[in-house]
Amino acid sequence: MSMNTFGHIFRVTTWGESHGPALGATVDGCPPGIEISEEFIQVFLDRRRPGQSKMTTQRQEPDRVRILSGVFEGRSTGTPIQLMIENTDQRSKDYGAIAQAFRPGHADITYHLKYGIRDYRGGGRSSARETAARVAAGGVAQAVLKALVPGLTITGYMVQMGEKHLNRANFDADEILNNPFFLPDATAVADWTDYLEGLRKAQNSVGAAVEVVATGCPAGLGAPIYAKMDSDLAAAMMTINAVKGVEIGEGMAAAALMGTENADEIVMGPEGPEFLSNHAGGILGGITTGQPIVVRFAVKPTSSILTPRRSITAAGEPVDVVTKGRHDPCVGIRAVPVAEAMMACVILDHLLLDRAQTGGVRGEIG
Amino acid sequence: MSMNTFGHIFRVTTWGESHGPALGATVDGCPPGIEISEEFIQVFLDRRRPGQSKMTTQRQEPDRVRILSGVFEGRSTGTPIQLMIENTDQRSKDYGAIAQAFRPGHADITYHLKYGIRDYRGGGRSSARETAARVAAGGVAQAVLKALVPGLTITGYMVQMGEKHLNRANFDADEILNNPFFLPDATAVADWTDYLEGLRKAQNSVGAAVEVVATGCPAGLGAPIYAKMDSDLAAAMMTINAVKGVEIGEGMAAAALMGTENADEIVMGPEGPEFLSNHAGGILGGITTGQPIVVRFAVKPTSSILTPRRSITAAGEPVDVVTKGRHDPCVGIRAVPVAEAMMACVILDHLLLDRAQTGGVRGEIG
Amino acid sequence: MSMNTFGHIFRVTTWGESHGPALGATVDGCPPGIEISEEFIQVFLDRRRPGQSKMTTQRQEPDRVRILSGVFEGRSTGTPIQLMIENTDQRSKDYGAIAQAFRPGHADITYHLKYGIRDYRGGGRSSARETAARVAAGGVAQAVLKALVPGLTITGYMVQMGEKHLNRANFDADEILNNPFFLPDATAVADWTDYLEGLRKAQNSVGAAVEVVATGCPAGLGAPIYAKMDSDLAAAMMTINAVKGVEIGEGMAAAALMGTENADEIVMGPEGPEFLSNHAGGILGGITTGQPIVVRFAVKPTSSILTPRRSITAAGEPVDVVTKGRHDPCVGIRAVPVAEAMMACVILDHLLLDRAQTGGVRGEIG
Amino acid sequence: MSMNTFGHIFRVTTWGESHGPALGATVDGCPPGIEISEEFIQVFLDRRRPGQSKMTTQRQEPDRVRILSGVFEGRSTGTPIQLMIENTDQRSKDYGAIAQAFRPGHADITYHLKYGIRDYRGGGRSSARETAARVAAGGVAQAVLKALVPGLTITGYMVQMGEKHLNRANFDADEILNNPFFLPDATAVADWTDYLEGLRKAQNSVGAAVEVVATGCPAGLGAPIYAKMDSDLAAAMMTINAVKGVEIGEGMAAAALMGTENADEIVMGPEGPEFLSNHAGGILGGITTGQPIVVRFAVKPTSSILTPRRSITAAGEPVDVVTKGRHDPCVGIRAVPVAEAMMACVILDHLLLDRAQTGGVRGEIG
Repeated sequence: MSMNTFGHIFRVTTWGESHGPALGATVDGCPPGIEISEEFIQVFLDRRRPGQSKMTTQRQEPDRVRILSGVFEGRSTGTPIQLMIENTDQRSKDYGAIAQAFRPGHADITYHLKYGIRDYRGGGRSSARETAARVAAGGVAQAVLKALVPGLTITGYMVQMGEKHLNRANFDADEILNNPFFLPDATAVADWTDYLEGLRKAQNSVGAAVEVVATGCPAGLGAPIYAKMDSDLAAAMMTINAVKGVEIGEGMAAAALMGTENADEIVMGPEGPEFLSNHAGGILGGITTGQPIVVRFAVKPTSSILTPRRSITAAGEPVDVVTKGRHDPCVGIRAVPVAEAMMACVILDHLLLDRAQTGGVRGEIG
Repeated sequence: MSMNTFGHIFRVTTWGESHGPALGATVDGCPPGIEISEEFIQVFLDRRRPGQSKMTTQRQEPDRVRILSGVFEGRSTGTPIQLMIENTDQRSKDYGAIAQAFRPGHADITYHLKYGIRDYRGGGRSSARETAARVAAGGVAQAVLKALVPGLTITGYMVQMGEKHLNRANFDADEILNNPFFLPDATAVADWTDYLEGLRKAQNSVGAAVEVVATGCPAGLGAPIYAKMDSDLAAAMMTINAVKGVEIGEGMAAAALMGTENADEIVMGPEGPEFLSNHAGGILGGITTGQPIVVRFAVKPTSSILTPRRSITAAGEPVDVVTKGRHDPCVGIRAVPVAEAMMACVILDHLLLDRAQTGGVRGEIG
Repeated sequence: MSMNTFGHIFRVTTWGESHGPALGATVDGCPPGIEISEEFIQVFLDRRRPGQSKMTTQRQEPDRVRILSGVFEGRSTGTPIQLMIENTDQRSKDYGAIAQAFRPGHADITYHLKYGIRDYRGGGRSSARETAARVAAGGVAQAVLKALVPGLTITGYMVQMGEKHLNRANFDADEILNNPFFLPDATAVADWTDYLEGLRKAQNSVGAAVEVVATGCPAGLGAPIYAKMDSDLAAAMMTINAVKGVEIGEGMAAAALMGTENADEIVMGPEGPEFLSNHAGGILGGITTGQPIVVRFAVKPTSSILTPRRSITAAGEPVDVVTKGRHDPCVGIRAVPVAEAMMACVILDHLLLDRAQTGGVRGEIG
Repeated sequence: MSMNTFGHIFRVTTWGESHGPALGATVDGCPPGIEISEEFIQVFLDRRRPGQSKMTTQRQEPDRVRILSGVFEGRSTGTPIQLMIENTDQRSKDYGAIAQAFRPGHADITYHLKYGIRDYRGGGRSSARETAARVAAGGVAQAVLKALVPGLTITGYMVQMGEKHLNRANFDADEILNNPFFLPDATAVADWTDYLEGLRKAQNSVGAAVEVVATGCPAGLGAPIYAKMDSDLAAAMMTINAVKGVEIGEGMAAAALMGTENADEIVMGPEGPEFLSNHAGGILGGITTGQPIVVRFAVKPTSSILTPRRSITAAGEPVDVVTKGRHDPCVGIRAVPVAEAMMACVILDHLLLDRAQTGGVRGEIG
């Protein structure tokens, strides 16, 4: 977990800027012998790909991933897997105006302060475009998990966009990929569409909340104290651009609960322990219980808006910033496949870490 | 950031169990020449110490810290600092009942599943007692920060306990250490006391939310992408026992905001850039802005309660668990000094990491 | 592998100074359920213990190890194991003379330059006394290896001391622990004793070369490219005080060989591949072959001698340094159990790392 | 220092196989604002490039490096630098014969055992071709060192090739780049050429020893105990293909010395402390003294030879292996620029690590 690397054993290092020639991910620690193909990874990238609806940036990027190393005759060899995505639709001229001005809410000013230099084109490294590399790496993780933990599923979806909330009574996982919001409720899509269109036309943007759930994850993953599963998941989600809050299970609502309400009671079922509730979000003491792992996070509204905001230039002069260029009116939408990718990486990482320490053997019950 | 270590450069490894002979922290990467004494560290430990009011566990532990290495003639030498706290009031017999039964909401069952063996006495390693070691390590971090960043302050306090919320209109930082709740509002102490007493007598417990704020932190700390300041802070808080959610600045509320509301506008002040608001909680793109860093987190209610809860034994037999022993009715209270310690460690760690990469030099504005 | 930590998964952090109250090792990543006792570890410490013959320092230290955490009812729990050894025979007054003067060949001057402060008593952290902590940690590694790889043996011995060389024709492993030199040749002990006694009386000291061999190590351990088994072993040995060279298999002599001589030919034996020679020292491409792992290293002569050497003080004044105090005339002797400990740690670390990546499954032959 | 990453702060991850589409290095932790260009890096790559004389493999690779990220308008931005080198002259058909047979002395059999799968084409990841990526990363390190430590020089050269030894009386650093052996003695080039030509025609190969010296390196770099400068250098050199031994200063010869001979005496010179000799090779207690850092290492003879060697196939059948394809008769020659690159990376890494812990401030003398 150094500056541009994530993970203990399954280590993902992403590289690249929004308007450079390419970006990608260097994946180290992948188990050998796993079926991995560009086609398999591409499915995940296509979900995150921009330009697919009016709900996301109009930048047109095919986001074709190339595997440059680590895979031989369709299988991983155990050596580093280099994933490269070429940038093709860089309109750097769009960004001339922000070469000197700091966009409010953006990393422009902090990168300037820290490094004294920044690739201002499209936000450079701080652009959400970096997340394409994570989704590619997540595709590798998904391929490994498919082989090692066949029943595991990782599903992300929107639960909030500004004043709109998911009605959980209508939850239908099959609808998630059928609309541009990753919304598990077909009946709400039109309403959400109108809402976001209205904001976009008003030169505004909006925040969002996303939930990601992993089912079929084995018990026993996660390592106390400082590599707790929830800590690593929180760190993972917080690295996604614009994320400001992360919750596991009850999340912030746990502050309002009493002990009698919160503790998930346990009974013995035919196949082992069963929990009668899941306030814990599938994690106790930093270690998975075998229940669904439930993570939620909030994404702040896109800071790039056409409504003028006050700011300053590098010369310290006041300036009104209007961010042209192509932007998502709700950057939280495309965070959904990114969060799935991060969760896949974290779960796989802990599966391997657990294999190291315990050999994957579980304590017996009953 | 391996299993029991936290930090990139300033690395804290904690060790020890609730009822073992001692616990402590091995601190690596401390700069040399810093004034450090047991007395200085003890002040922080005393804030977290149990047995000081009816609001916390009645276990009596002096929590005296000993410095075993790394400090010579009152100053750090740059070598590892070993901090040891002896356990003195272990009543292990209290825990005989849970040797075989898994307490709901606790790590008992997950430790059993993962390791096949657990030190059940007082929760062993999963006990909140481990956080004493962090507070000691945080004391070292505070000593270094005091020397390197004189104006920095780190202040934690309760903002919620069950149905009670801090009234921010009454906020008074000077009151925080004057009551057992770390509550910055003297007028609410009696009410909170009655509320918690009532819950305790009802054999129940309650959740809490804590806020920690750092002021005077230099701009430019934090390292994109995977060592973002907010990501490391979120990870740090999530490692604290019973924490289920973490927020930076607006936190989960960001999901409801529009772009026009959220972006913090910037103007040029007499001493440099000034932000007109702090929705970002002092961090943009993972890097500090120089504004106050604002972190909040939720702690679930203590799972150890006297009200019976259904569970199973290691043999798979059903059992009603009543957790006797000595416990905090609101474990969130003592999380306050722990969170301050974690924040001190994270900020110092990033100060050192930044020194490595940039030499601590900042980009100029104006 | 940060400043005071060694290992990828099985991570050993040592702490403590020569004349502080105690020193020790924090061991993270130990598999759970392993039988570990103070008695088992003590056996290894007793081999390294000073004051046992005239061949080593006359400092009297019982070097009793205490396990402070991570072991419950005689078995490891998977949590950090803290090993502490109290210092009891610190005669700090012996070292008053070197508080200001830099002993030639010692770390005094470099610690001063780097840190601006140093615990000069007995060399502080740079003292070979630190290696007691490694031997204790190595004891834990040996306990784990005993359980996981029953046939594995790790044996160190002297092969050179100044002008004396081991006569390999006389090699007898059973003699190693029967003499103060860890010399596998009983017939040479008297000669080596006379030689070292002569040097000691002449107020001199001498270098040494040590060989450590692991037999029964499984094939497939080690991870290209930057965690090669040979690279990690070389790093491990180079961290031992006064070591100046490390060799694997043929070592430096490989520079003189031709390809026809060096490559170890392979045939199929009844139980799998067999190598007809072992120039490689049991490692090819950074991965173990299953043959004995052979490491050799050179230790420079003890720099602390009674013969005056020219040096300077911190004030820059010239001074003739005569190092009194209690010192080993050949510090290489006690490096033998230290090197065994380091090899045990490295092999175990790679066993666990391999388990993470490959699950410990081996490719088939035949 | 995980599996495919080297370094603490300046972290280099290499990726790629001998016959894949490309290989490269992901460089994290580079300070911002440093002038870096493809041309600057190319100079180092050209020194390592194959096909330049009969002394090295006849594979023709232009080894053109492309910078894909982390550099903007000619300067580093502090974000990861991706360096890519495309493979252009892969004649994979040459390697059909070794798809099933294990070449003696090569990593073929260990990769097979560990991973169960291997990219056999040209040795895949275990090919010395991987070192091109290191040389590119070393070029980045050299650019940073040039800016931060102007007087530093890093110079590698051959000191032995089989039975030929460098005559140090003839040492002339200016000749190193004037002959295909990196030999600092023009008078010996013809002799070495004849010797190697003879071996090549005899279908044989030969080992070598290389020395690398850094002058102008500041005192105070290196971090005890487990990130000693010598330990990190030894690890770095041992990761280079075919290296079997590493020495610092006196190296293995230290075993034969007496204390009176070995300790480098210190006097006060006009600009600070001066050492009267350099047996230590510029490092005491793991920390640089300011003297030249002297590292030597041995490279075993190329295992790929045309003389038949006995081996087995993956099916366990005996086979006589003759390695056709294009190979270096002395792989040690091209290890020279690789070792320079590794030394540049290690020194820079420690410069940054030291900046983190001490701020780069040195203790005063005089």
